[in-house]
Amino acid sequence: MKVCMAQIEVTSCRPNLNFERMSKAIASAKSEHADTIVFPELCLSGYLIGDTWEEQSFLSDLLYYGEQICTLAKDIIIVFGNIAVDKAKTNNDGRPRKYNALYCAQNGKFMLFPGGKPYYIKTLLPNYREFEEPRHFCDSERMVAEEKGFSVNYKHLYFIPRNINGVSAGLCTCEDAWSSQNYPTDPVSEYVNNDAELIINISASPYTLGKNRLRNKVFGLEQAKKHNVPLIYVNQTGLQNNGKTLFTFDGSSTAYNKNGEIVAQAPMFKEHLLYIEYKNGDILPGELALLPSSDIEEIEQSLLYGIDKYLRACGTNKVVVGLSGGIDSAVTAALYAKIVGPENLLLVNMPSKYNSATTKNIAEKIAKNIGCYYTSIGIEESVELTTKQIQRAPIFKGAEYLSKQSLNLTPFHLENVQARDRSSRILAALSSAWGGVFTCNGNKSELSVAYCTMLGDLSGYLAAIGDLWKEQVYELGRHINKTYPVLPEEVFTVVPSAELSSEQNVDEGKGDPLVYWYHDRLFQSWMQWWFRCTPEENLEWYSNGTINQKLSISAGQDVYKLFSTKEVFCNDLEHWYKLFKGMGVAKRVQAPPVLALSRRSYGFDFRETLNGCYFTRRYYELKLGKQ
Amino acid sequence: MKVCMAQIEVTSCRPNLNFERMSKAIASAKSEHADTIVFPELCLSGYLIGDTWEEQSFLSDLLYYGEQICTLAKDIIIVFGNIAVDKAKTNNDGRPRKYNALYCAQNGKFMLFPGGKPYYIKTLLPNYREFEEPRHFCDSERMVAEEKGFSVNYKHLYFIPRNINGVSAGLCTCEDAWSSQNYPTDPVSEYVNNDAELIINISASPYTLGKNRLRNKVFGLEQAKKHNVPLIYVNQTGLQNNGKTLFTFDGSSTAYNKNGEIVAQAPMFKEHLLYIEYKNGDILPGELALLPSSDIEEIEQSLLYGIDKYLRACGTNKVVVGLSGGIDSAVTAALYAKIVGPENLLLVNMPSKYNSATTKNIAEKIAKNIGCYYTSIGIEESVELTTKQIQRAPIFKGAEYLSKQSLNLTPFHLENVQARDRSSRILAALSSAWGGVFTCNGNKSELSVAYCTMLGDLSGYLAAIGDLWKEQVYELGRHINKTYPVLPEEVFTVVPSAELSSEQNVDEGKGDPLVYWYHDRLFQSWMQWWFRCTPEENLEWYSNGTINQKLSISAGQDVYKLFSTKEVFCNDLEHWYKLFKGMGVAKRVQAPPVLALSRRSYGFDFRETLNGCYFTRRYYELKLGKQ
Repeated sequence: MKVCMAQIEVTSCRPNLNFERMSKAIASAKSEHADTIVFPELCLSGYLIGDTWEEQSFLSDLLYYGEQICTLAKDIIIVFGNIAVDKAKTNNDGRPRKYNALYCAQNGKFMLFPGGKPYYIKTLLPNYREFEEPRHFCDSERMVAEEKGFSVNYKHLYFIPRNINGVSAGLCTCEDAWSSQNYPTDPVSEYVNNDAELIINISASPYTLGKNRLRNKVFGLEQAKKHNVPLIYVNQTGLQNNGKTLFTFDGSSTAYNKNGEIVAQAPMFKEHLLYIEYKNGDILPGELALLPSSDIEEIEQSLLYGIDKYLRACGTNKVVVGLSGGIDSAVTAALYAKIVGPENLLLVNMPSKYNSATTKNIAEKIAKNIGCYYTSIGIEESVELTTKQIQRAPIFKGAEYLSKQSLNLTPFHLENVQARDRSSRILAALSSAWGGVFTCNGNKSELSVAYCTMLGDLSGYLAAIGDLWKEQVYELGRHINKTYPVLPEEVFTVVPSAELSSEQNVDEGKGDPLVYWYHDRLFQSWMQWWFRCTPEENLEWYSNGTINQKLSISAGQDVYKLFSTKEVFCNDLEHWYKLFKGMGVAKRVQAPPVLALSRRSYGFDFRETLNGCYFTRRYYELKLGKQ
Repeated sequence: MKVCMAQIEVTSCRPNLNFERMSKAIASAKSEHADTIVFPELCLSGYLIGDTWEEQSFLSDLLYYGEQICTLAKDIIIVFGNIAVDKAKTNNDGRPRKYNALYCAQNGKFMLFPGGKPYYIKTLLPNYREFEEPRHFCDSERMVAEEKGFSVNYKHLYFIPRNINGVSAGLCTCEDAWSSQNYPTDPVSEYVNNDAELIINISASPYTLGKNRLRNKVFGLEQAKKHNVPLIYVNQTGLQNNGKTLFTFDGSSTAYNKNGEIVAQAPMFKEHLLYIEYKNGDILPGELALLPSSDIEEIEQSLLYGIDKYLRACGTNKVVVGLSGGIDSAVTAALYAKIVGPENLLLVNMPSKYNSATTKNIAEKIAKNIGCYYTSIGIEESVELTTKQIQRAPIFKGAEYLSKQSLNLTPFHLENVQARDRSSRILAALSSAWGGVFTCNGNKSELSVAYCTMLGDLSGYLAAIGDLWKEQVYELGRHINKTYPVLPEEVFTVVPSAELSSEQNVDEGKGDPLVYWYHDRLFQSWMQWWFRCTPEENLEWYSNGTINQKLSISAGQDVYKLFSTKEVFCNDLEHWYKLFKGMGVAKRVQAPPVLALSRRSYGFDFRETLNGCYFTRRYYELKLGKQ
C-alpha cells in the first residue's frame, strides 16, 4: 500500500483556500498511484480559530467543503480532519454539538464508523497551554455514554477500517496517540488489541522547541515499538494564532516502523507530499528530510518562517526597526533583513543626549553591513517640548486659574518620555510613511519583569523575539553571523543598556539591572517550568545550597557569589517577583503578540491575572530563618 | 435553623486576607447565634486567578488556611469553597489532581463525604466565556468513574449532611444548580430525590447585565419551585480579572422559598452578612435589599464599583482624563469624578487646529461643573515637529546618502499622528506628573471596528466603558445627569466626531462614519448574541425584509432607508466586517483591559484570532441574487 502523507499548509478560517490545497494534493497523489492520502487534523478550518467555532455559517461551509473532498475519493482513499456537527444535540454551553472529527472517504462516500456516524470522534481533547478543545468540542467518550443501546465500552469508540486496501488501520487524531502522557484512556492500545496493523495519526501540532524529540519518544518508543505496530504522523504547516500568541506549525510529518524507528520524514516548515510504502506489515524506509542540526538553528528557522507568514497575513513586507546598537534590535534587524531583504527594511537610530557614540556607531555599522535603508532621527527636541508643555501647562480648578500650581516630571518619568517618543511618535509615523509596520524588539527577560516602557519599546506590530531569553538572543545573534555576518563584534560585547539616563552609560560599563545568567533562569522557574515555582522554592534552594544546580546555572557562575547573604538574595528576589506579578502582567496585557518558541510563552498560552504579588507562609518562615 | 449567608469580598490570590474576612464573619455569626454560616465558592483563593493554579506553594497555603477555618467550626457549622488536591493522582496535563471543592466543617472537623473524602467535588464545570474550569479542575464524575468499587451512579456523587442541625441539606457549588441549562446531569434533582429539605449553593458568579434575572428564573422557578425545596445562593463581591477582562462580582446573595419566591436578598456590590431562618421546611421571609431600579442604574453601579476596585488594586486614586468635548470622555470624566472626587481628577483638552470652539467649550464647561483640575495642552507644535522630522530625515542606503530620497506623511497618517501625540506623549507624561493613571475612553462600538488609533485613543490603563455600545454611553450620560448634573446638554447633541481633519468638522455636522442606531446592533449580532451571526445572516434578513425586526432597530428608524439597495447595504456590511475581523482584532490584542458588563465582552471572554475576514459561500450567493 502506498500512502501519501500530505503535509499541507493550513490557513485558519479559509476553507476555500485549504480545499484548493487539498484538491491539488489529491491530484498529485493520484498521479503517483498512491492508494491512500492522509491530511492533517482540522485541515479545512485551521486549528487555532478561537471562538469562530460559534459561527454556524462558518461551520456550514466546512461541512460543504468536506463533502466536496468526499467526491474526490475515487481510486484513492482520503483521510482528513474536519468538524462534525450534531444539531440534534447541544454542548454544555447550549450551542450545537461539535466534534473534532476524522473522516475517511472511499468511492465517493464517507465510511461509517461504529454507531453509524460517518466520522471518528477525537477522544483525548487537550486543555492546557494554548489548547482548549473542550471549550468547543465534545469528546467521543461523552458521546458514547449518551447513545442509547451503546454501552460505555471503549472498544466501541475506535474504528479500524479493514478495507483500507486490506490493511487494518487504526485512525486517530493528534492527542489520541499521546495517551501514554497522563490520560486515563488509551486509543492506541485499544486499536492494537483489536488487531490494528498500522496506526494513522492526523495532527495539528504547533511547534515548540523540543517537542519533536518528545514526540519521537512517545510515538516511536511508547507507541510503535511498545505495541509492535508502525505509526504514521501527518502534521500541517503554516502560522496560526490566538490573537495574543502566534504559533508556527512545523510539519515534520513522520513515519515510524514497528521498532519505533523513523523511516520517513518530511521537512520542517515546508509543504511536502511524503510517499511511504506499507508492505509485509511494516513501513519501508523512505525519504528523510534534513533537519536542523541544533536547537538554535531550529529556533532561527521557526522565527524566519513565522515572521514571514505573519507579515504576509498583515499584507506588508515593508518594515521599520528602531536600532539602538544593542543586541535585541540588532538581531531583530538581521532577521528581518533575511525575510524582507534590504530593499524593504528601514533601520532608524533615535538618539537622545544619553546615547553614546559607541552604540550609534554599532547601529550605523549594522545598517551598512546589511545594505538596507537607514536614518537617524533625534528625540531631544521633542522631549524638551514635552517637558516644557507639561511643566508649564496652565492649571485651573473649576473656574479658578491656579497661578502657582505646576506639574513636574522626575528623571524617571523622563526615561519613559524618551522611550515613548521613540516608538509612539517616531517609529509609528515613520512606519506609516514607509508604508509598513514597526517592530517590537523586546525579549522574554524584559517582558517577564516589565523592564520596558508601555507605548515605548514595548510597542510594535509583533514581538518576534518575545519568547527568547536574553541569553538566547545572544546565541541567536552568533548563530546568524555564521552564515550572514552582519552583526559587528561590539554588539556582543557592549554592556546591555537602555541608555535612558547617565546612570546607564555604556562607556562606563553601566547598564541593565538584570544579571542574565541568573535572572533568565530564575524567571524560567516561575513561568516556563511545567511544575512552576515561586520564591518559596527559590529561597528553599538558596538556603539548602542547591540553587546553582536547581537553576542549571552555567559553569563558572555562582549564585552565592552574586548574593552573599540571604538578605540580599531575598531583596533581589522580591523586587523582581513583584514586577513579574504586578507591572509585568499589566504591561503584557497590552503587549504586542508574541511568536511562541518555547514550551511556555506569554499571552494566551500562559494565562495571567493582575492580582499583585503573594508570598507564601513558607517563604516568610524561610526568610525569617525557620527551617 | 438560623443561617448566616456570608457575602464577603474575595481578593484573588490573597488567602491570608480572605481568611481574615472569613474569621471576622464567623465571629459575627457566632455572636448572632447562627447555627450555620455559608461562604462563597473558592473564597480563599479567588475565582479568576488564571494559571496560578499551577503553583504548588500557593495551593499549599490554600489548604493551610482551609484547615484554620475548620478549627473555627465550634458552636457553628461552616460551609465554604476551597481547592482540594489529590497528589496521588494527576490531571490530564500531568500536574497534581485538583478539585473545585466544597467543605463543611463542624466541631473542628471536616465532614466526610461519600468515598471518604472530606469535601464535595463540583460536578458541572463551566467552560465558556471567561470560564475555563476544566483547564484546572477534575469534575466529580471523572473522580467517581475512577474510584474502584465505586460504581458510576450519580447518587453517590451528592452528599446530604443530615446532621446540619437535623436538616437534610443538599450542598452544591455554583454551576451545579444551573443544571437545567443544557447539562447532561442534574445534581439538584439528585438531592431532591434523596430527600434534601434545603439546597445550599455556594458561588463565584461574575456580574453581567441580566444575569440575576436569569438566575432568579433558574434557581427560583426551575429549581426551588419545581422541586418544592427552598434554595440558598451565596455569592461573593469584589473585582477579579483575567488580565484582559475585569469582572465585578455583585454578591446579590438570595434565598428562595419552596415557591421559588425571593424571601431574602443581600445588596449588590456590597459585603453583607444576611441572616435567614429555616423553619418548618421553608425559609421565612427576611431582609430584602433595595436593588437598582433599571438596567442603566445597575450598569452605573457596576462601573463605579469596578473602577474603584481596580484603581485601588493599581495603588492610585489620581486620574487624568483626556476630554475632547464628546460624549465618551465626558461620561468617563463624570464617572471618575464620582469615584476619586474632584481633588484627584485632572481633565485635559488637547486641541489641534481641527478642534472646534464648540467642543473646547463643552470640555471647559464639564471641568467647571465638576470643579476638578483642568488644563489645555495643544498638540499642533509637536505634530509639526514630527512631520518635519519624518519628512526631512536623512536617508542612507548602506553607506550611501540618498540626497533626493524623502518620506511623506499623508493626511490619513497625520490623523493618527495627532491621536498618538495626545495619548502617548501628553497623557502619558501628564499622568506621570500627576502621579496617577490616564484613562482609555473608547466604547464598544469603536473597539469592534478599530475606529480608534493604537498608541492613541486606544491607550490607557483601563477601558472602563469599553463594554458599552455608543447608544448605552449616551443613556448612561443622561442617567448620571439625573443625580449628578455635570454634563451640559450640548454634549448630547453635538455630532460624534474624532475632529482629526476638516472632514470631521462638527460645526458642519460632520463626524463619525458610524450610524450608531444601526451599527451598534449589527455588531452585536456578530459578537454579543449567544448564537453568533455573520454577514450571511445579515444579508439574508436584508433580502427577506426582516432586518429591522431581527436587529431590534428602534421605532422610527429603518435600515431600508439607510441602505436603499442591496449593493450599498453590502458595501457597508463588508467594510465594517473586514475591520471587525482584521484591524479590529489586531487592535484589541493590544488594547487596555475592558471592564465587563455585557454577556460578551472583548478580551478573554470573546476569544479571537487574527485571521482576516471570510465571507461564506451562501453570502456570495445571496449577494449575487441567488435564493
